[in-house]
Amino acid sequence: MTQTPKAADVVMVLTELADIIDARRQASPQSSYVAQLLHSGEDKILKKVIEEAGEVLMASKDGDRQHLIKEVADVWFHTMVLLTYHQIRVEDVLQELQQRQHISGLTEKASRKSQ
Amino acid sequence: MTQTPKAADVVMVLTELADIIDARRQASPQSSYVAQLLHSGEDKILKKVIEEAGEVLMASKDGDRQHLIKEVADVWFHTMVLLTYHQIRVEDVLQELQQRQHISGLTEKASRKSQ
Amino acid sequence: MTQTPKAADVVMVLTELADIIDARRQASPQSSYVAQLLHSGEDKILKKVIEEAGEVLMASKDGDRQHLIKEVADVWFHTMVLLTYHQIRVEDVLQELQQRQHISGLTEKASRKSQ
Amino acid sequence: MTQTPKAADVVMVLTELADIIDARRQASPQSSYVAQLLHSGEDKILKKVIEEAGEVLMASKDGDRQHLIKEVADVWFHTMVLLTYHQIRVEDVLQELQQRQHISGLTEKASRKSQ
Repeated sequence: MTQTPKAADVVMVLTELADIIDARRQASPQSSYVAQLLHSGEDKILKKVIEEAGEVLMASKDGDRQHLIKEVADVWFHTMVLLTYHQIRVEDVLQELQQRQHISGLTEKASRKSQ
Repeated sequence: MTQTPKAADVVMVLTELADIIDARRQASPQSSYVAQLLHSGEDKILKKVIEEAGEVLMASKDGDRQHLIKEVADVWFHTMVLLTYHQIRVEDVLQELQQRQHISGLTEKASRKSQ
Repeated sequence: MTQTPKAADVVMVLTELADIIDARRQASPQSSYVAQLLHSGEDKILKKVIEEAGEVLMASKDGDRQHLIKEVADVWFHTMVLLTYHQIRVEDVLQELQQRQHISGLTEKASRKSQ
Repeated sequence: MTQTPKAADVVMVLTELADIIDARRQASPQSSYVAQLLHSGEDKILKKVIEEAGEVLMASKDGDRQHLIKEVADVWFHTMVLLTYHQIRVEDVLQELQQRQHISGLTEKASRKSQ
């Protein structure tokens, strides 16, 4: 097992979070913020995505690192709610990031091997 | 090793991507898009963040799933460049997501144990 | 008097609106939406600006003309609140638009003359 | 004629600007920035709207008044290009602002009378 605990957390957070959000698709709108958001529909979710992106700009300009971390987390979270709304898995986004960044096949191979 | 290859990819993509972006801090602006972006400064990065968030809205409204995946990846990517600009690690965002979502200690414990 | 009633309305709307917003700087936050917004501070106003800009995108994508008119009005309105927050007059924005668009001196002269 | 020259300029700027943008609908994309933008289509225009709204946030946060005036002008300008794309007149936005702000009929009547 070559992964650090931190890396293992990464797996957990994103896949668990996607599962949690997905489970709330069926829940009553009153049961949670995510259930309410998914129930409110696409425009409401999109409004949150752009609003949180705006807050990233403000936190960055303020030079407030803790606020910036929270706002980036908010953008990621609400884009994950949007993915769930469209029944897309977060893994598709991660795969896209992987392909785009031209992470070399050799690096990838080495990484897989070490596991 | 209980993690699926997919989950292992998640680890790789985000931590490797953060490392790749970070490495480009020192690179010549001509060497890559990220190096150029980091060299251009905060406003240029923020402009990309809000622009890509806007494109998420458009792709969602178009109902174009492939485009949406690409645009969400773009938002995540450019927020990661912003984190690098502020010398913040992506792990801090993931930790924030974890805390916020009240992923129960028991679930977390079970997850860690299985590894 | 060569102006059409419609053109005269344009004058009234923007200058009166700027005056109305400006008057609410001193008002109790409870007295009106604008007073509350100005009292809440810059970040709250900026959040509305970006949120309404996002709604312009959605209304445009929906092809909903009436909604689009309302959302463009919302963006203009909240940018006017922002100008008031910074004690800038809307006339400065209009002057900027005029200069930028290279409205020719001759056209301008003819326009002034006709009044 | 009770209007100040400044108010008269307001009329000219917005109605002339709308006419100028409208005239460029038929022009070759190479002939001007607006013609190119209208030719590029809705997504390109929307991208500019959200990008300029983001720049309003940055200029406001920087406390840079001259930059803020320019960026608000940019937002207004690009929303006017969007209106033209949808064949909506700027007067419709101004009418919406007028109605929303509950500018009283009496005020309006007085204003009209004075002209």
